[in-house]
Amino acid sequence: MTSTTTALQDPRSAPPLRWGVLGPGWIAGTFAAAVHGWTQGRVVAVGSRDRERAEAFAARFEVPTTHVGYEALVADPQVDAVYVASPHSGHHAHALLAIAAGKHVLVEKSFTRNASEAQEVVDAARAAGVFCMEAMWTRFLPHMVALRQVLARGEVGEVVAVQADHGQGFAHMPDTHRLHARELAGGALLDLGVYPVSFAHDVLGEPQVVTALGSLTRTGVDGQVTMGLGYGDRAQAALHTTLWARTATTAVVAGSEGRIEVATDFYRPTSFTVVRDDGSRWTFDQEVDGGFQYQAAEVARRVAEGRTESPVMPLDGTLAVMRTMDEVRRLVGVAYPGE
Amino acid sequence: MTSTTTALQDPRSAPPLRWGVLGPGWIAGTFAAAVHGWTQGRVVAVGSRDRERAEAFAARFEVPTTHVGYEALVADPQVDAVYVASPHSGHHAHALLAIAAGKHVLVEKSFTRNASEAQEVVDAARAAGVFCMEAMWTRFLPHMVALRQVLARGEVGEVVAVQADHGQGFAHMPDTHRLHARELAGGALLDLGVYPVSFAHDVLGEPQVVTALGSLTRTGVDGQVTMGLGYGDRAQAALHTTLWARTATTAVVAGSEGRIEVATDFYRPTSFTVVRDDGSRWTFDQEVDGGFQYQAAEVARRVAEGRTESPVMPLDGTLAVMRTMDEVRRLVGVAYPGE
Repeated sequence: MTSTTTALQDPRSAPPLRWGVLGPGWIAGTFAAAVHGWTQGRVVAVGSRDRERAEAFAARFEVPTTHVGYEALVADPQVDAVYVASPHSGHHAHALLAIAAGKHVLVEKSFTRNASEAQEVVDAARAAGVFCMEAMWTRFLPHMVALRQVLARGEVGEVVAVQADHGQGFAHMPDTHRLHARELAGGALLDLGVYPVSFAHDVLGEPQVVTALGSLTRTGVDGQVTMGLGYGDRAQAALHTTLWARTATTAVVAGSEGRIEVATDFYRPTSFTVVRDDGSRWTFDQEVDGGFQYQAAEVARRVAEGRTESPVMPLDGTLAVMRTMDEVRRLVGVAYPGE
Repeated sequence: MTSTTTALQDPRSAPPLRWGVLGPGWIAGTFAAAVHGWTQGRVVAVGSRDRERAEAFAARFEVPTTHVGYEALVADPQVDAVYVASPHSGHHAHALLAIAAGKHVLVEKSFTRNASEAQEVVDAARAAGVFCMEAMWTRFLPHMVALRQVLARGEVGEVVAVQADHGQGFAHMPDTHRLHARELAGGALLDLGVYPVSFAHDVLGEPQVVTALGSLTRTGVDGQVTMGLGYGDRAQAALHTTLWARTATTAVVAGSEGRIEVATDFYRPTSFTVVRDDGSRWTFDQEVDGGFQYQAAEVARRVAEGRTESPVMPLDGTLAVMRTMDEVRRLVGVAYPGE
């Protein structure tokens, strides 16, 4: 396990932080609602290339300042940290823009299109001394904090296998939709598959071997991918993602003495059951609303501590996830224009 | 879907059949108990190379005749059908022996070590005009009959993905155990993985593409395998098996309009839930005891009808499963002595 196990803290106890939202899409709305609903932070500004979109977002989430253009947003002195919520293809440039302006950054997953772009963002953030993190919100959820504690206590023994899948019924989306667009780094892997891949990295680290079977959309991005990750001479992760069907979206960590079954949807706030080979079992079932507030609180805490990375979602962990996804894409034959 | 969908019939309503058991191991005991408990059939004879093992089995399951040596068993005129329950490595020779004696045969899974051996058995059975079937008991269970009906009705739309895994905590078995022995065709795939592979074949047929990631035991057989099967330009099966951990052992069939979640253990009598994308759901939960009686009844019915194959587990289906497993073994680097 690569992540630090820490006790769960109430996100409302994190210090206040002033957020600027870059790219007012669906996920930015989820983020703003969580920040305002369950943290001391505030979204103080939103930036979009489209004035109407910025203003609609500002009105809906009670954001006092709107900026047309991302340069104006990252230059806004009211903003402490920029949440980069543009399409995958924009993350690299937009994170670099915010870092160059001296802002802390939370970059929506997938962090960038590939490991090379990710390395540039990481290098820039480290050189600038600003906080930088991939917005892999799942890692900060109560059930994941508890799951890492189960592993650290050795309740299921040595981890032998991780299984996780994420499929959504997006087949009806038009070919012009972001999810299907090569130029926007669409496809199942970067949008949905990043969750099972990151889950496997959280539990087992970076694999030494990657296998993948891909099926492409008409537009040339991955519509479905089955992946096998190999660790040392024993452990494996069996992962799956698809745009074409709503799957069970569960995860299992199977060890030499028992297993952890994470319920649907494993990547959202949910429950899990520990089933030990000795016949005992118990369930973690601590319901929470929202979900993005935990990662927002993590950023606020680490920034207040003067740290530049989160030990739960460190930049080296993000780079490892991107390397794995690069290899998966190489195996299934998906490249984005201009890579 | 390759299998015929038929309504479930009570195994007690099948005609009587006189069974000879070849190889009185653990699985043969499960079979004898099911035949005696829930069918009109009888195990009338048991054959083993070891007199004491044959006699102990006969005493335990009230089998009237014991034979030392398999030749005597297959020559016994009381026996209508031979259940080949020796280790995988013996199936080929023992099935051929029974077929040559004019007996019907039910061959324990995996059917043989490889597709070439399977083809020889199939050819011999077809030439002799005897009934022959792989003992893939799961396909005859109530929940699988109902699952095929759900698919035939189109309740989940077009099948996009199949997921299934089978892992057991057999790590503590000594290196000398059958499961770890190359010369007995041990390993996870032929012992446990055949269930998810056969499940995928039942739902989607034979794949055109196979990917696999294998981790080997100290003895050189597969301890763990993650597999991806590709069908046409869209559907996939994501499968996993391991000897080293007790996994969740569930299966999911995900389609364009919903999914079927088969509960633990998917390969035994169990329940499933149909979850449709329109929000509706229902559960099939018809408990049954035992399980092997359904395949025994299938053999008795087909033999009485004068048929030489089961439409639910046809020999071409078995050959396809063996071809897929051959390709998986080639990819992970496992071969058995003398293949």
